[in-house]
Amino acid sequence: MAETKEPLIIRDKLQMRNWSRSMRIQGKTIALVPTMGFLHNGHISLINEAHKNAQLIVVSIYVNPGQFSTSEDISTYPSDFNGDLKKLMGVSGGVDVVFNPYNLYDYGDERESVVRREKVEGVAAAAVSCVESGAAGGGHETWVRVEKLGNGLCGRSRPLFFRGVATVVSKLFNIVEPDFAVFGKKDYQQWRIICRMVRDLDFSVQIIGSEIMREDDGLAMSSRNVYLSSEERQKALSINKSLSKAKHSVAQGLIKCKELRESLILAVEEAGGKVDYAEIVDQQSLEAVEEVKSPVVFCVAAWFGKARLLDNIEINV
Amino acid sequence: MAETKEPLIIRDKLQMRNWSRSMRIQGKTIALVPTMGFLHNGHISLINEAHKNAQLIVVSIYVNPGQFSTSEDISTYPSDFNGDLKKLMGVSGGVDVVFNPYNLYDYGDERESVVRREKVEGVAAAAVSCVESGAAGGGHETWVRVEKLGNGLCGRSRPLFFRGVATVVSKLFNIVEPDFAVFGKKDYQQWRIICRMVRDLDFSVQIIGSEIMREDDGLAMSSRNVYLSSEERQKALSINKSLSKAKHSVAQGLIKCKELRESLILAVEEAGGKVDYAEIVDQQSLEAVEEVKSPVVFCVAAWFGKARLLDNIEINV
Repeated sequence: MAETKEPLIIRDKLQMRNWSRSMRIQGKTIALVPTMGFLHNGHISLINEAHKNAQLIVVSIYVNPGQFSTSEDISTYPSDFNGDLKKLMGVSGGVDVVFNPYNLYDYGDERESVVRREKVEGVAAAAVSCVESGAAGGGHETWVRVEKLGNGLCGRSRPLFFRGVATVVSKLFNIVEPDFAVFGKKDYQQWRIICRMVRDLDFSVQIIGSEIMREDDGLAMSSRNVYLSSEERQKALSINKSLSKAKHSVAQGLIKCKELRESLILAVEEAGGKVDYAEIVDQQSLEAVEEVKSPVVFCVAAWFGKARLLDNIEINV
Repeated sequence: MAETKEPLIIRDKLQMRNWSRSMRIQGKTIALVPTMGFLHNGHISLINEAHKNAQLIVVSIYVNPGQFSTSEDISTYPSDFNGDLKKLMGVSGGVDVVFNPYNLYDYGDERESVVRREKVEGVAAAAVSCVESGAAGGGHETWVRVEKLGNGLCGRSRPLFFRGVATVVSKLFNIVEPDFAVFGKKDYQQWRIICRMVRDLDFSVQIIGSEIMREDDGLAMSSRNVYLSSEERQKALSINKSLSKAKHSVAQGLIKCKELRESLILAVEEAGGKVDYAEIVDQQSLEAVEEVKSPVVFCVAAWFGKARLLDNIEINV
């Protein structure tokens, strides 16, 4: 906590873009680190990665209603803006701007810019985001979808999630106009989707994938870890341990994905977890493979108590 | 044809963006006029409109496979690049750049960048664009969709069309980085969709809607008019005449859309046309109205011979 550089806090889209343009005219390069706040050391590692590539750092803090379905509870998503600012002031090299907009779906028409924040029960609610359910008539209706990459893994249980992520990231790119943007590889599918979107839509932003940050005991850092009791937290270590074991098994010649997956599922469920998915997929296409014969990533989502935890390990053969 | 300013022809994405950035650094403003080539005076009017707003003009000429379904025939889409260049050299004030990329869906992987150019028969073919059908595996898969505005009018018979338009326009915006872009109001739905997309995704591009250009006899200018025999051309005037008559009727107090529509459909079909749709819709939401009590647009698509012609008239009450 040596430095105490105070970031500029910007809440207005236009002011944000003007800042970026004034910096670009001076020949400065800008990296964007998009977050939903409630920052932990995983986020800080993204900022450190940003510093390796660009001269100026913009951290966005915005809980995006477009990626929550109305059956998910956006109102209880954890936030701590002052705590976040404090953490950002301690980052080595500092942060230049915190972009913290009120509502990125407010287009100046009061009637149309309402975003639903209450949870709605039922299956149908899962197919409508908080943005759509609150918008009557001429509201937000443009969505960016990465068709295939978004269908599997987390896309199966959260059909609107990646559409919401790709859309808000497009908005942020158009507002901040960064040269670089940093995404964590813990959210492996999200990172690949953003890379593909940037390529397919010709965004002039270079995407940097940042390695997973782990606690000392190996648990992948996540805002959701606060939901774990200390007992659950201990049990959740089974995810990372099983992934490391799988990688080790491959190195020893076990390449059948069926066996590798079954072994991991067994271990996590024996520890008391509930596996949402455990899949070994191609690193680029995210399509499931039967044998590990090319670079793959072993992706896991599992529930421990109230927390749905994600983790993964790349296996390069 | 007083001037003979020769435009710079750019075929490479990166070179295009570099040109724009070098101009922006000099404080110049840029307007983009996106076209599919085979230029006529309607296009020239878009360029004239561009000159009123920006210092530099980029005209893109690109037949976008992403907006053709495989049941439509992209290979016979008319083109005349040299003729287009000649016309552009005659434009008052000139054109600075013609951006004429080979393939905007070529991402450097030979296997994945094939675009299907043959027509495929059958209903299923209508649900896949020429980009998707030619891409095996890791090809282009990111699409921008303006959900509601794209569903009605032309969206009903061409379910992929506006998705393809919004996507290629996003790509062009990210490559050219213009300050302005000009779209013709003849394609009214397209214009509204682009406006909404720009707002919803926070593109920093100002969209200019350019009024419909008509031949001396009132026929809306279109690349498709070349498909009309002289007899069909004469009969096709019924569209514009009926639209003007409808506007006149409204001014005289007839506000029932049912009657206005029936009267137009009758006139066009008596002239030998086949009406695809004739709808009176809100200018912003493009939702059908029952009575003309607020600004509407009367949109028509009708077949004469092999040509599907579009026309419309705004009625501001």
